[in-house]
Amino acid sequence: MNTFGQLFRISIFGESHGAAVGVMIDGCPPGIKVDPEEIESDLDRRRSGAKGTTPRKEYDRPEIISGVLDGYTTGAPVVVLTTNTFSRSGDYDKLKNHPRPGHADMIVEMKYGGYGDRRGGGHFSGRLTWGIVVAGTLAKRIIAPAIPEAVLLSAGGNTDIDAAVSMALEEGDSVGGVIECRVREMPASLGEPFFWSAESAISQIIFSIPAIKGIEFGSGFRSASMRGSEHNDMITGPGGETSTNNAGGINGGITNGNEIVFRVAVKPTSSISRPQQSLNMESGRVETLIVEGRHDACIALRMPVIVESAVAIALADLMLLNRGIHSNLRKNG
Amino acid sequence: MNTFGQLFRISIFGESHGAAVGVMIDGCPPGIKVDPEEIESDLDRRRSGAKGTTPRKEYDRPEIISGVLDGYTTGAPVVVLTTNTFSRSGDYDKLKNHPRPGHADMIVEMKYGGYGDRRGGGHFSGRLTWGIVVAGTLAKRIIAPAIPEAVLLSAGGNTDIDAAVSMALEEGDSVGGVIECRVREMPASLGEPFFWSAESAISQIIFSIPAIKGIEFGSGFRSASMRGSEHNDMITGPGGETSTNNAGGINGGITNGNEIVFRVAVKPTSSISRPQQSLNMESGRVETLIVEGRHDACIALRMPVIVESAVAIALADLMLLNRGIHSNLRKNG
Amino acid sequence: MNTFGQLFRISIFGESHGAAVGVMIDGCPPGIKVDPEEIESDLDRRRSGAKGTTPRKEYDRPEIISGVLDGYTTGAPVVVLTTNTFSRSGDYDKLKNHPRPGHADMIVEMKYGGYGDRRGGGHFSGRLTWGIVVAGTLAKRIIAPAIPEAVLLSAGGNTDIDAAVSMALEEGDSVGGVIECRVREMPASLGEPFFWSAESAISQIIFSIPAIKGIEFGSGFRSASMRGSEHNDMITGPGGETSTNNAGGINGGITNGNEIVFRVAVKPTSSISRPQQSLNMESGRVETLIVEGRHDACIALRMPVIVESAVAIALADLMLLNRGIHSNLRKNG
Amino acid sequence: MNTFGQLFRISIFGESHGAAVGVMIDGCPPGIKVDPEEIESDLDRRRSGAKGTTPRKEYDRPEIISGVLDGYTTGAPVVVLTTNTFSRSGDYDKLKNHPRPGHADMIVEMKYGGYGDRRGGGHFSGRLTWGIVVAGTLAKRIIAPAIPEAVLLSAGGNTDIDAAVSMALEEGDSVGGVIECRVREMPASLGEPFFWSAESAISQIIFSIPAIKGIEFGSGFRSASMRGSEHNDMITGPGGETSTNNAGGINGGITNGNEIVFRVAVKPTSSISRPQQSLNMESGRVETLIVEGRHDACIALRMPVIVESAVAIALADLMLLNRGIHSNLRKNG
Repeated sequence: MNTFGQLFRISIFGESHGAAVGVMIDGCPPGIKVDPEEIESDLDRRRSGAKGTTPRKEYDRPEIISGVLDGYTTGAPVVVLTTNTFSRSGDYDKLKNHPRPGHADMIVEMKYGGYGDRRGGGHFSGRLTWGIVVAGTLAKRIIAPAIPEAVLLSAGGNTDIDAAVSMALEEGDSVGGVIECRVREMPASLGEPFFWSAESAISQIIFSIPAIKGIEFGSGFRSASMRGSEHNDMITGPGGETSTNNAGGINGGITNGNEIVFRVAVKPTSSISRPQQSLNMESGRVETLIVEGRHDACIALRMPVIVESAVAIALADLMLLNRGIHSNLRKNG
Repeated sequence: MNTFGQLFRISIFGESHGAAVGVMIDGCPPGIKVDPEEIESDLDRRRSGAKGTTPRKEYDRPEIISGVLDGYTTGAPVVVLTTNTFSRSGDYDKLKNHPRPGHADMIVEMKYGGYGDRRGGGHFSGRLTWGIVVAGTLAKRIIAPAIPEAVLLSAGGNTDIDAAVSMALEEGDSVGGVIECRVREMPASLGEPFFWSAESAISQIIFSIPAIKGIEFGSGFRSASMRGSEHNDMITGPGGETSTNNAGGINGGITNGNEIVFRVAVKPTSSISRPQQSLNMESGRVETLIVEGRHDACIALRMPVIVESAVAIALADLMLLNRGIHSNLRKNG
Repeated sequence: MNTFGQLFRISIFGESHGAAVGVMIDGCPPGIKVDPEEIESDLDRRRSGAKGTTPRKEYDRPEIISGVLDGYTTGAPVVVLTTNTFSRSGDYDKLKNHPRPGHADMIVEMKYGGYGDRRGGGHFSGRLTWGIVVAGTLAKRIIAPAIPEAVLLSAGGNTDIDAAVSMALEEGDSVGGVIECRVREMPASLGEPFFWSAESAISQIIFSIPAIKGIEFGSGFRSASMRGSEHNDMITGPGGETSTNNAGGINGGITNGNEIVFRVAVKPTSSISRPQQSLNMESGRVETLIVEGRHDACIALRMPVIVESAVAIALADLMLLNRGIHSNLRKNG
Repeated sequence: MNTFGQLFRISIFGESHGAAVGVMIDGCPPGIKVDPEEIESDLDRRRSGAKGTTPRKEYDRPEIISGVLDGYTTGAPVVVLTTNTFSRSGDYDKLKNHPRPGHADMIVEMKYGGYGDRRGGGHFSGRLTWGIVVAGTLAKRIIAPAIPEAVLLSAGGNTDIDAAVSMALEEGDSVGGVIECRVREMPASLGEPFFWSAESAISQIIFSIPAIKGIEFGSGFRSASMRGSEHNDMITGPGGETSTNNAGGINGGITNGNEIVFRVAVKPTSSISRPQQSLNMESGRVETLIVEGRHDACIALRMPVIVESAVAIALADLMLLNRGIHSNLRKNG
């Protein structure tokens, strides 16, 4: 069930230590410009390098396999992938029977009856978000001039992100963070009733990003403490403009033309250098586990571009849907 | 796009002041017991009556239209509906050009090109959640012995819910609330990678409930302030048991056998008795609006059963999917 | 899985002897006129009455439950149903353990583990096509000015349909027939590559009509005996006009602007008055079975309107999809 | 919308002269053996070589990109592709404004607003069926011991297929053919009511194969000329065994345990060496067109394995669905 969307449908595939990871986009309109520099630029933002992100260089150069000709989408399915050039599965062999806390190791073993690929997280690796970023570059062109922008507000509860990450790094530990995303110049009317509301679609794809454990729109959890007289956004303009934006740009599940605003909670990176306790499935005992290698001290640092891409994909789908179902009114009246 | 689920698929239909509201369940296994008392009991919990909920008596007796014979589902689509016996659309006529703040009125007018049914919120009314509760009674039987339980933790930021609601009521105002839901005796292995992860599926249906503006799993937004060494749940047992449950029972998007825990933020009821400012679309001016009638001072009071039903529906879908795709391993090896 | 379509999605529900049969249409654009006389007129064509069709009067007056206001669709799900006013399940009790040849009786018993509703064919009854006809009236408005027209070409292999039916009727037997459907003024460009080609979509819905056992487009099975030089339609005009129409208006799975032409094979009605042999599941022996009541001698007589409705539904879906995915080219180039 | 299936979902991608063609399989159970020799063997049957098939050697060696580890599926999406090693698009440049009769050239130009890839048929090329054959090898393992077998019954109306093809070849022409497919050892109970009936699912995927213009199940079009007393299959055994098989193994859209039998009509190859007339879109005149290169005189020769693969894919999907929805009856009664 690894597909998102009703019309603009994306599927991601691959494994951390397999041959490749990639993305397939079905239902992509023809005539969308595909700019390799644009893709590279977004991938750069996702890539490791900054302090607190793993220094391991990932060779994630995109190869366009299908659906693009002379720099434009053709209307056929778009497939883009990147070949994995490393595959040190040796590092992971010792973890085979000793599941890492916070990771999907143990449950993958159970769910797939022993057939799951567990090398480096396998299909459940954060590496798979590569495909979300690539698909996001096309989605952003579809929803233009709307443009999503995400920023990391805090790490480990500290708005001095640099300090929080440095400290965690020194201690071989990790920290989480809160990311805020805003979509400006949003067209109104996107979102279908109930199950494919703007919030439903956005949250479905956002929670597919590993490590995200919460999402709130507009005033979100703070709404719960507010009065209606305080929370209701006063309508002031014929385009749906409001004096405040507690709704986060969405009413009744439909974008109302105001800025979309939402925040997501990112848990601390599960892989840490400190010793941890976990069941050794072979011995049947809880034993000390050391996860070797270098790790992202704060995975949230790499995630703003992923969040932007994900929301662009959800909005592109809602936009095509709205165009398919709701355009040309009165035509057959 | 008013359908939720991949296998256990539910669709809700109807309008607040139309002929009926109802639900269709496609992909419902045969042999599930349908107990009218059970349905009534859940509908009772959703129904108005408690302080702070609207005293208007809704006649929402369920009529089973199809898919059930001699008290058991037959495997054919199940349709259940309730006839609307009142229809005082007169109350709403004066609101036609004066959209209520916090409601979908204005955006429905725009999106549907003037054809949308706006009487009492039309299809966007909270009344449509009736169908989610009815479908939930079947879903709960499918996921048994797992059992979801939701409670209202606070209203208007106050754990003395009664006091908070009373105060809002006196002032013609409303308050929001936070609901926590736990699913005990959860089987492990439910959830598909990425786009149909347990969090993705649950959040998609949860955000289809009007007024919900946030969701967090396990430690949720608090995770963002934690260290990895603190957040990682130590694995202690062969069934995936952990010493803590910061993950909220879900790792890598798959249920890990621990209790599922999530919280949702409910905004204050948008309909309040206090005068509000809103654009009059006819005059083109911002004018004072009085929303007549009696309103729920705290819609969150009625929502625990809706949240339980929604999560049961999502889990039933994940359970059937898991059975369809992942059972009988090695059979063809 | 009782849903057809990607955007214009219809689901049918109900049982022959249950409370009602009906249809839900999700993804129906707002502003489509709903004309009760038009619906009645199509239902009349489906209804019994002509020679060779069962004289049993079906009260199939449509009740519009949701999604329509003041004669136009609102954009919310449309539900229309008709209440069953008869329910002589007694007639069918004796068939419980003696499955009728040609019917789904035995396999329904097996598939649904004894829970299936078998009264009068239950959910598998041809009565369910009522919903296809009702949905078809909306679909026809969406695809206008394209207009499907189906005619019965022959019955029992005889183009003198009247004679063939009369003869079967006299002998307590039944006959099949061949229906040809043409869609004139077809817009070009409908159909997606491969799995949702025009032929794929049309055949999927056509084979959901009980008793249909074959479909062919354009020259169909005769194509297999032709040479390429004979079969290829010479392109003569800038709109895709061709000198012949062996392709039946579809090339590469996409409508090419010419008339769509297809034929379907309808098997003879399975219910006949003549004695038949069938396994008695109770006795374990093959025994003589008499199916009582009066039966359609030629179910194909009632099917042209159902075929027209089905193809209109498939084309409406393809039209909305094409509009959603392929309109506004170069917009973001 | 290039996806087939509800649970076992396949998508095909690529272009005739693009970088690659391939297939993605989502919802593939873990633990299915992937045998490269088995895949090669099926691809061999599809490959050119026999008289009347194009002598051009296609390098279509499969590369497994994801979802398989140590020879077994892992439960993650399976992607297999083959790199195109030739790309003589020069041959096709002259056809840019002169659409080939019988091909999708002209309609692709119209539908995709000039952005479609038309080199060698682009995404609409028969080359895309490569992915159906690869996915079919997995599907066959899922439905085992059921085994589909397709044979070419006749070509150009002649059961002496060799003679018919030779004659067409000599004349620079092509012929169509009729293929019959039987699935033995079919389990009963596969197929959902109406829109996902066994015939609906099979016909949807079968019509995605280029050049197929008709399908009939069991007695098919011959049924239309039969009497009910002749057509009804007498039930003789407790497993649903029947004395005849006019139904082709499917009743009420559900497999009844008998052999599935269907026939498909394949039109003659559209590419022929003889001069043809077609509109030159540049000159606006109908002009003589010579399609250069060597062509399959009878594409039907290569299609039995594609038909077998397609039906296996449809049945695998129905089998997983049946397992997901209908197993474990009474469990929650």
